[in-house]
Amino acid sequence: MIGRFLEDFAAGQTFRSGRVRIDTERIKTFGAEFDPQPFHLDEEAARDTIFRGLAASGCHTAAVTMRLLVESDLKPAGGIVGAGADEFRWPRPVRPGDELRIESEVLEVRPSRSRPDQGLIKVRTTTLNQNDEAVQVIIANLVVPRRPTPGGEEAAASEHVDPAGERVSSSVPPHDRRSSDE
Amino acid sequence: MIGRFLEDFAAGQTFRSGRVRIDTERIKTFGAEFDPQPFHLDEEAARDTIFRGLAASGCHTAAVTMRLLVESDLKPAGGIVGAGADEFRWPRPVRPGDELRIESEVLEVRPSRSRPDQGLIKVRTTTLNQNDEAVQVIIANLVVPRRPTPGGEEAAASEHVDPAGERVSSSVPPHDRRSSDE
Repeated sequence: MIGRFLEDFAAGQTFRSGRVRIDTERIKTFGAEFDPQPFHLDEEAARDTIFRGLAASGCHTAAVTMRLLVESDLKPAGGIVGAGADEFRWPRPVRPGDELRIESEVLEVRPSRSRPDQGLIKVRTTTLNQNDEAVQVIIANLVVPRRPTPGGEEAAASEHVDPAGERVSSSVPPHDRRSSDE
Repeated sequence: MIGRFLEDFAAGQTFRSGRVRIDTERIKTFGAEFDPQPFHLDEEAARDTIFRGLAASGCHTAAVTMRLLVESDLKPAGGIVGAGADEFRWPRPVRPGDELRIESEVLEVRPSRSRPDQGLIKVRTTTLNQNDEAVQVIIANLVVPRRPTPGGEEAAASEHVDPAGERVSSSVPPHDRRSSDE
């Protein structure tokens, strides 16, 4: 729960992630629980559908993207807390064996008008497969706390202030707070 | 995979679902797999976060909403296939024990310009908790096949045409194809 404050973000910053492989079994079990339609459940039944074969549920792709985002170096203080999304597209299906990664770019940073202790960052996250083809694009608005006014840089580097103003010590070593702007 | 064709949808139609209960354990296991942040993993750790207690991941809420949508009477022919979303918000957190249901409304129906065999419907789906408070609002564009031109009503009632034009017989009994407009 340590990380960047609103003041640490700027439009143009980019962040990347590792890769995760999407396997057939998880496509089917995720589909069975959350999106039980033939094209997410069974190769044979998927053949005669719009997908022309087994494909991951868009919700599955979104969930895997969330995991990649949490593990990326974006790391807003207070965690990745989505207020919503302005755009959300799945340009192509995710297939069994695809290896997904993300590229995120900060598009906008703005303080909240009603909440002086926080703001929003607008972040476009593109989920790419192993052929560098986009499988999902989301432009999300994330809630990010502002750096606490008394204390400055020193305090910001070792503590954060939650929405109620309570300080929480950091146990995250400095190398985990490196900048990953590329 | 039988259901309504584009011609069967009209702006103003509404659809509802049953309810599903979100339990603590599933919030935590979903969080552990897809959104490993303190507010989705542990009551104690969640207390000092922006959520002030355990809350379901937004991806979890979205996935449960998908399940409710698949089980609702919306049932587009060819399945629920999302092209993307114009709006996506989580107005309030989902808490352990919440019972979720959805209300969907068709906002717009339009044939595709490039694909004469399909079109898009724009559907607003609001996910509500047991107190009728909105926990998620999504305005999604769904791909829906048009009714096959040769065959008319009779064929549409018992068969559908997939994007390649191949006919697939229906095994869905007539009562599952009822209108649910409310």
